[in-house]
Amino acid sequence: MTATTLIAMLDMLGTFAFGLSGAMVAVRRKLDLFGILVLAVATGVAGGMIRDVLLGDTPPAALRTLTPLGIAGAAGLCVFFFGPWINRLTRPVMVLDAIGLGVFCVAGCHKALEFGLTIPGAALLGVMTAIGGGMLRDMMAAEVPRVLHEEVYAAAALAGALAYAVAVHLGVPGIIAAAGAVLLAVLLRLASVRYGWRLPRAPWG
Amino acid sequence: MTATTLIAMLDMLGTFAFGLSGAMVAVRRKLDLFGILVLAVATGVAGGMIRDVLLGDTPPAALRTLTPLGIAGAAGLCVFFFGPWINRLTRPVMVLDAIGLGVFCVAGCHKALEFGLTIPGAALLGVMTAIGGGMLRDMMAAEVPRVLHEEVYAAAALAGALAYAVAVHLGVPGIIAAAGAVLLAVLLRLASVRYGWRLPRAPWG
Amino acid sequence: MTATTLIAMLDMLGTFAFGLSGAMVAVRRKLDLFGILVLAVATGVAGGMIRDVLLGDTPPAALRTLTPLGIAGAAGLCVFFFGPWINRLTRPVMVLDAIGLGVFCVAGCHKALEFGLTIPGAALLGVMTAIGGGMLRDMMAAEVPRVLHEEVYAAAALAGALAYAVAVHLGVPGIIAAAGAVLLAVLLRLASVRYGWRLPRAPWG
Repeated sequence: MTATTLIAMLDMLGTFAFGLSGAMVAVRRKLDLFGILVLAVATGVAGGMIRDVLLGDTPPAALRTLTPLGIAGAAGLCVFFFGPWINRLTRPVMVLDAIGLGVFCVAGCHKALEFGLTIPGAALLGVMTAIGGGMLRDMMAAEVPRVLHEEVYAAAALAGALAYAVAVHLGVPGIIAAAGAVLLAVLLRLASVRYGWRLPRAPWG
Repeated sequence: MTATTLIAMLDMLGTFAFGLSGAMVAVRRKLDLFGILVLAVATGVAGGMIRDVLLGDTPPAALRTLTPLGIAGAAGLCVFFFGPWINRLTRPVMVLDAIGLGVFCVAGCHKALEFGLTIPGAALLGVMTAIGGGMLRDMMAAEVPRVLHEEVYAAAALAGALAYAVAVHLGVPGIIAAAGAVLLAVLLRLASVRYGWRLPRAPWG
Repeated sequence: MTATTLIAMLDMLGTFAFGLSGAMVAVRRKLDLFGILVLAVATGVAGGMIRDVLLGDTPPAALRTLTPLGIAGAAGLCVFFFGPWINRLTRPVMVLDAIGLGVFCVAGCHKALEFGLTIPGAALLGVMTAIGGGMLRDMMAAEVPRVLHEEVYAAAALAGALAYAVAVHLGVPGIIAAAGAVLLAVLLRLASVRYGWRLPRAPWG
């Protein structure tokens, strides 16, 4: 198994998790079935689309293969039918979302490096891949994006993407770098929720 | 007359209709002349720009030719000077907007097929072309996009785009497929407004 | 010194100014350190990214070189640590922002002309480069973009971009056209603030 295969597999899990989170916001906003599907799909695939457009790899993967679209749509349908049950699964959904965050930041960084970006640019693109979908979700819901004021979220994505880019640069085999970086981002995110870590606010705020 | 010519002509009508709707939102938000023009142009051309960027056809058509820009700007000026009169024309404006929706979903799908996307990807891009302008309009106005919670709107665009892609795939001549698909989307939209059709909300909502 | 060099230098100043404005909004919204940095960077580099994506020049410059990213991030850190002091510097910050506006509209127009766009398309792209970052900033803060209802702002950018494109077309040496157009946009913006110029609202509003 190569880094690419591992990332592709985890990518589906992440897309599903992000689709769930988009659909939950849509339900909270009392949107109809189609609104739920649109927000599920947008949240699930927008990060990857932004990544592909910025890299010039068009049409983006999410328009060329059905898989991400279908997975995010399925997540939307799950919420439509089983929302209250999923709502009670706060912890598993949060863990899934953390996995999505971890995978997307590494997947974005991985692809950016393949397209010749240097470490900082690739790390930034990894962060954009990871938080793009959630930002669009919240902007569509006319809310300040949660990633901007939530405990260590975008910061965990940055740590994961940076770790991957540096590890690959140092010659660590791709599969190990990817697994380690995903794990780092996921654990950072989960620990921040578990222990209520927060980044500092402006000292004079 | 080919499908491309028909679509190009209807496209102008759609751009004008979308420009009107953008300008009306701007007026409601008490924006000045320039804000009205910006929202009119953004609503009129954003869908096509998103389509062209996602297909890698850059710079987008709206930057290469003056026509869409001029048409959307003219719609903005119409609203600036004759807003109250236009406001009273609720029904014609709504019909124009439905035509815009129908044309844009088919035009987006048409171009996506030409760029080699498969049916589902092309249909999705058609929907994005049709609803992208309106979404940006409402996000700029800091509102939840109307297309997310309005009666059958994005769903009508999906039906039209899908119908066009499938018809072309089945060998229906382009001009007939285009006319039929536009008509389908427009009628679905108008019927949904006329009869108050709604998509289901989450059953447990 | 060529127009390109002058624009590159002023571009850094503009990126810094826009980074400041993004960070100030983030602080007002009580975002944490990372949210401040994200908004600073987004405001500082989004306009240029939109320009590069629309021109098909991917990956965008802001991902290939560290400079804009670092400058916008530095602006974010300045606000994080010295916010109240910067806040009191209303006038210098506003002047910096006007310079950013003037430079970005000319830089966007300049690049668009190099990529073969005609005058109106290039001027429009200049405006999008100049106001894109601020629009994204306000949409992220779930507010109606300030550029849509503020005194002559986007209009100043349009004047600058148009002046540059026309001057170059008439054979004015690039460096003079650039300096003059930047100056025009900056002075228009400053004068509009100083004298409270406003564009007309709809006459029947």
